[in-house]
Amino acid sequence: MHRSRLHVVLLDSPAQVSDAEVSFWAGALGSTPEVEEGTPFTVVAPLGSGMVLAHQRLGSGASRVHLDIETDDTEAEVERLEALGAERVGEYDGCVHLRDPAGLLFCVVPVQSEDFAEHATVWG
Amino acid sequence: MHRSRLHVVLLDSPAQVSDAEVSFWAGALGSTPEVEEGTPFTVVAPLGSGMVLAHQRLGSGASRVHLDIETDDTEAEVERLEALGAERVGEYDGCVHLRDPAGLLFCVVPVQSEDFAEHATVWG
Repeated sequence: MHRSRLHVVLLDSPAQVSDAEVSFWAGALGSTPEVEEGTPFTVVAPLGSGMVLAHQRLGSGASRVHLDIETDDTEAEVERLEALGAERVGEYDGCVHLRDPAGLLFCVVPVQSEDFAEHATVWG
Repeated sequence: MHRSRLHVVLLDSPAQVSDAEVSFWAGALGSTPEVEEGTPFTVVAPLGSGMVLAHQRLGSGASRVHLDIETDDTEAEVERLEALGAERVGEYDGCVHLRDPAGLLFCVVPVQSEDFAEHATVWG
Protein backbone atom coordinates (compact mmCIF):
# COMPACT_ATOMS: atom_id res chain seq x y z
CA MET A 1 0.00 0.00 0.00
CA HIS A 2 1.29 3.46 -0.87
CA ARG A 3 -0.05 6.94 -1.54
CA SER A 4 0.38 9.63 -4.19
CA ARG A 5 -1.11 12.86 -5.43
CA LEU A 6 -0.55 15.48 -8.12
CA HIS A 7 1.33 18.21 -6.27
CA VAL A 8 3.15 20.69 -8.51
CA VAL A 9 2.63 22.32 -11.91
CA LEU A 10 6.18 23.33 -12.79
CA LEU A 11 7.22 26.03 -15.22
CA ASP A 12 10.76 25.18 -16.33
CA SER A 13 12.82 27.83 -18.07
CA PRO A 14 16.44 28.63 -18.86
CA ALA A 15 18.22 30.75 -16.23
CA GLN A 16 18.38 33.91 -18.35
CA VAL A 17 14.58 34.28 -18.51
CA SER A 18 13.77 32.83 -15.09
CA ASP A 19 13.36 36.11 -13.21
CA ALA A 20 11.07 37.47 -15.91
CA GLU A 21 9.11 34.21 -15.97
CA VAL A 22 8.54 34.16 -12.19
CA SER A 23 7.61 37.86 -12.12
CA PHE A 24 5.19 37.40 -14.99
CA TRP A 25 3.25 34.53 -13.45
CA ALA A 26 3.21 36.12 -9.99
CA GLY A 27 1.77 39.26 -11.59
CA ALA A 28 -0.66 37.24 -13.69
CA LEU A 29 -2.03 35.44 -10.63
CA GLY A 30 -1.59 38.21 -8.07
CA SER A 31 0.71 36.13 -5.87
CA THR A 32 3.96 36.68 -3.98
CA PRO A 33 6.62 34.20 -5.16
CA GLU A 34 8.75 32.42 -2.55
CA VAL A 35 12.27 31.41 -3.53
CA GLU A 36 13.37 28.08 -2.04
CA GLU A 37 16.91 29.11 -1.11
CA GLY A 38 19.68 26.79 -2.24
CA THR A 39 17.45 25.13 -4.84
CA PRO A 40 16.46 26.05 -8.41
CA PHE A 41 12.81 26.23 -7.30
CA THR A 42 10.47 29.14 -6.60
CA VAL A 43 6.88 28.66 -5.47
CA VAL A 44 4.94 31.05 -7.68
CA ALA A 45 1.39 30.63 -6.35
CA PRO A 46 -0.84 28.23 -4.42
CA LEU A 47 -3.43 26.54 -6.65
CA GLY A 48 -5.74 25.24 -3.92
CA SER A 49 -6.08 21.78 -2.38
CA GLY A 50 -2.39 21.90 -1.50
CA MET A 51 -1.25 22.12 -5.12
CA VAL A 52 1.22 24.80 -6.20
CA LEU A 53 2.42 26.49 -9.35
CA ALA A 54 6.21 26.58 -9.15
CA HIS A 55 9.15 27.54 -11.33
CA GLN A 56 12.39 25.66 -11.93
CA ARG A 57 15.48 27.51 -13.15
CA LEU A 58 17.11 25.21 -15.68
CA GLY A 59 20.84 24.90 -16.22
CA SER A 60 20.14 23.89 -19.79
CA GLY A 61 17.22 22.69 -21.86
CA ALA A 62 14.11 24.21 -23.35
CA SER A 63 11.22 25.84 -21.51
CA ARG A 64 8.31 23.57 -20.73
CA VAL A 65 5.50 22.91 -18.26
CA HIS A 66 5.64 19.61 -16.38
CA LEU A 67 3.71 17.91 -13.58
CA ASP A 68 5.11 16.43 -10.36
CA ILE A 69 3.44 13.51 -8.60
CA GLU A 70 4.32 13.31 -4.91
CA THR A 71 4.44 9.90 -3.25
CA ASP A 72 5.45 8.12 -0.05
CA ASP A 73 6.90 5.20 -2.07
CA THR A 74 8.71 6.27 -5.21
CA GLU A 75 9.43 2.79 -6.55
CA ALA A 76 5.88 1.52 -6.01
CA GLU A 77 4.43 4.64 -7.63
CA VAL A 78 6.75 4.41 -10.64
CA GLU A 79 5.80 0.74 -11.10
CA ARG A 80 2.11 1.66 -10.91
CA LEU A 81 2.54 4.40 -13.52
CA GLU A 82 4.63 2.18 -15.80
CA ALA A 83 1.81 -0.38 -15.72
CA LEU A 84 -0.55 2.42 -16.85
CA GLY A 85 1.67 3.27 -19.83
CA ALA A 86 4.43 5.61 -18.62
CA GLU A 87 8.08 5.10 -19.53
CA ARG A 88 10.86 5.67 -17.01
CA VAL A 89 13.58 7.84 -18.53
CA GLY A 90 15.91 8.70 -15.66
CA GLU A 91 16.43 9.75 -12.08
CA TYR A 92 17.95 12.82 -10.46
CA ASP A 93 18.31 13.63 -6.79
CA GLY A 94 15.61 11.17 -5.70
CA CYS A 95 13.13 12.27 -8.37
CA VAL A 96 12.21 9.83 -11.12
CA HIS A 97 11.60 11.26 -14.61
CA LEU A 98 9.02 9.56 -16.81
CA ARG A 99 7.27 10.16 -20.11
CA ASP A 100 3.52 9.75 -20.45
CA PRO A 101 1.89 8.10 -23.53
CA ALA A 102 2.02 11.43 -25.41
CA GLY A 103 5.73 11.79 -24.70
CA LEU A 104 5.30 14.52 -22.06
CA LEU A 105 7.86 14.52 -19.29
CA PHE A 106 6.65 14.33 -15.70
CA CYS A 107 8.27 13.47 -12.38
CA VAL A 108 7.61 11.28 -9.37
CA VAL A 109 9.03 12.89 -6.25
CA PRO A 110 9.24 11.90 -2.57
CA VAL A 111 6.85 13.56 -0.10
CA GLN A 112 7.76 17.24 0.18
CA SER A 113 4.58 18.87 1.50
CA GLU A 114 3.08 18.97 4.98
CA ASP A 115 -0.45 18.32 3.74
CA PHE A 116 0.44 15.27 1.62
CA ALA A 117 -1.68 12.81 3.61
CA GLU A 118 -4.71 15.09 3.47
CA HIS A 119 -4.79 15.08 -0.35
CA ALA A 120 -3.18 11.76 -1.34
CA THR A 121 -4.92 8.76 -2.86
CA VAL A 122 -4.20 5.33 -1.34
CA TRP A 123 -3.22 2.63 -3.86
CA GLY A 124 -3.00 -1.17 -3.56
CA MET B 1 -12.60 46.38 -13.52
CA HIS B 2 -12.46 42.74 -14.60
CA ARG B 3 -11.73 39.34 -13.11
CA SER B 4 -9.56 36.32 -13.97
CA ARG B 5 -8.21 33.12 -12.53
CA LEU B 6 -6.05 30.17 -13.52
CA HIS B 7 -8.60 27.52 -14.46
CA VAL B 8 -7.21 24.65 -16.54
CA VAL B 9 -3.98 22.68 -16.83
CA LEU B 10 -4.27 21.28 -20.35
CA LEU B 11 -2.49 18.24 -21.72
CA ASP B 12 -2.40 18.65 -25.51
CA SER B 13 -1.59 15.64 -27.64
CA PRO B 14 -1.97 14.44 -31.23
CA ALA B 15 -5.18 12.50 -31.91
CA GLN B 16 -3.48 9.12 -32.30
CA VAL B 17 -2.23 9.06 -28.70
CA SER B 18 -5.13 10.96 -27.11
CA ASP B 19 -7.09 7.97 -25.81
CA ALA B 20 -3.95 6.50 -24.24
CA GLU B 21 -3.04 9.89 -22.77
CA VAL B 22 -6.46 10.43 -21.17
CA SER B 23 -6.58 6.86 -19.83
CA PHE B 24 -3.10 7.18 -18.40
CA TRP B 25 -3.74 10.38 -16.44
CA ALA B 26 -7.16 9.20 -15.24
CA GLY B 27 -5.48 6.04 -13.96
CA ALA B 28 -2.60 7.98 -12.49
CA LEU B 29 -4.95 10.25 -10.52
CA GLY B 30 -7.75 7.77 -9.88
CA SER B 31 -10.34 9.88 -11.70
CA THR B 32 -13.14 9.29 -14.19
CA PRO B 33 -12.59 11.38 -17.33
CA GLU B 34 -15.54 13.26 -18.82
CA VAL B 35 -15.57 13.84 -22.58
CA GLU B 36 -17.01 17.22 -23.59
CA GLU B 37 -19.03 16.00 -26.57
CA GLY B 38 -18.57 17.94 -29.78
CA THR B 39 -15.30 19.47 -28.61
CA PRO B 40 -11.68 18.22 -28.58
CA PHE B 41 -11.69 18.47 -24.76
CA THR B 42 -11.92 15.88 -22.00
CA VAL B 43 -11.91 16.81 -18.32
CA VAL B 44 -9.43 14.34 -16.81
CA ALA B 45 -9.61 15.21 -13.11
CA PRO B 46 -10.58 18.01 -10.71
CA LEU B 47 -7.53 19.64 -9.08
CA GLY B 48 -9.35 21.42 -6.26
CA SER B 49 -10.43 25.07 -5.91
CA GLY B 50 -12.37 24.73 -9.15
CA MET B 51 -9.28 24.01 -11.24
CA VAL B 52 -9.21 21.01 -13.57
CA LEU B 53 -6.71 18.87 -15.42
CA ALA B 54 -8.02 18.48 -18.96
CA HIS B 55 -6.91 17.03 -22.28
CA GLN B 56 -7.12 18.53 -25.74
CA ARG B 57 -7.03 16.30 -28.82
CA LEU B 58 -4.89 18.15 -31.36
CA GLY B 59 -5.43 18.05 -35.11
CA SER B 60 -1.75 18.70 -35.55
CA GLY B 61 1.17 19.92 -33.49
CA ALA B 62 3.38 18.49 -30.79
CA SER B 63 2.33 17.34 -27.33
CA ARG B 64 2.64 19.94 -24.61
CA VAL B 65 1.18 21.12 -21.30
CA HIS B 66 -0.37 24.59 -21.28
CA LEU B 67 -2.32 26.76 -18.85
CA ASP B 68 -5.68 28.48 -19.43
CA ILE B 69 -6.60 31.70 -17.68
CA GLU B 70 -10.36 32.26 -17.48
CA THR B 71 -11.68 35.82 -17.52
CA ASP B 72 -14.87 37.88 -17.79
CA ASP B 73 -13.13 40.41 -20.08
CA THR B 74 -10.76 38.82 -22.57
CA GLU B 75 -9.39 42.05 -24.04
CA ALA B 76 -8.76 43.68 -20.66
CA GLU B 77 -7.06 40.52 -19.38
CA VAL B 78 -4.85 40.20 -22.46
CA GLU B 79 -3.81 43.84 -22.12
CA ARG B 80 -2.99 43.29 -18.44
CA LEU B 81 -0.88 40.22 -19.28
CA GLU B 82 0.87 41.99 -22.17
CA ALA B 83 1.85 44.77 -19.76
CA LEU B 84 3.38 42.08 -17.52
CA GLY B 85 5.49 40.69 -20.38
CA ALA B 86 3.33 38.30 -22.39
CA GLU B 87 3.16 38.38 -26.18
CA ARG B 88 -0.11 37.85 -28.04
CA VAL B 89 0.34 35.30 -30.81
CA GLY B 90 -3.15 34.59 -32.13
CA GLU B 91 -6.79 33.91 -31.48
CA TYR B 92 -9.04 30.93 -32.10
CA ASP B 93 -12.72 30.53 -31.30
CA GLY B 94 -12.75 33.34 -28.73
CA CYS B 95 -9.57 32.14 -26.99
CA VAL B 96 -6.47 34.31 -27.17
CA HIS B 97 -3.10 32.54 -27.42
CA LEU B 98 -0.09 34.19 -25.80
CA ARG B 99 3.51 33.36 -25.00
CA ASP B 100 4.98 34.04 -21.56
CA PRO B 101 8.51 35.47 -21.08
CA ALA B 102 9.99 31.95 -21.35
CA GLY B 103 8.18 31.35 -24.64
CA LEU B 104 5.58 28.99 -23.17
CA LEU B 105 2.18 29.09 -24.82
CA PHE B 106 -0.86 29.80 -22.66
CA CYS B 107 -4.43 30.91 -23.36
CA VAL B 108 -6.92 33.48 -22.12
CA VAL B 109 -10.44 32.12 -22.40
CA PRO B 110 -13.92 33.51 -21.66
CA VAL B 111 -15.71 32.36 -18.50
CA GLN B 112 -16.56 28.68 -18.86
CA SER B 113 -17.02 27.49 -15.27
CA GLU B 114 -19.88 27.93 -12.83
CA ASP B 115 -17.60 28.72 -9.89
CA PHE B 116 -15.60 31.42 -11.70
CA ALA B 117 -16.66 34.28 -9.40
CA GLU B 118 -15.81 32.27 -6.30
CA HIS B 119 -12.16 31.84 -7.31
CA ALA B 120 -11.41 34.86 -9.52
CA THR B 121 -9.18 37.81 -8.66
CA VAL B 122 -10.54 41.30 -9.30
CA TRP B 123 -8.20 43.60 -11.26
CA GLY B 124 -8.20 47.36 -11.80
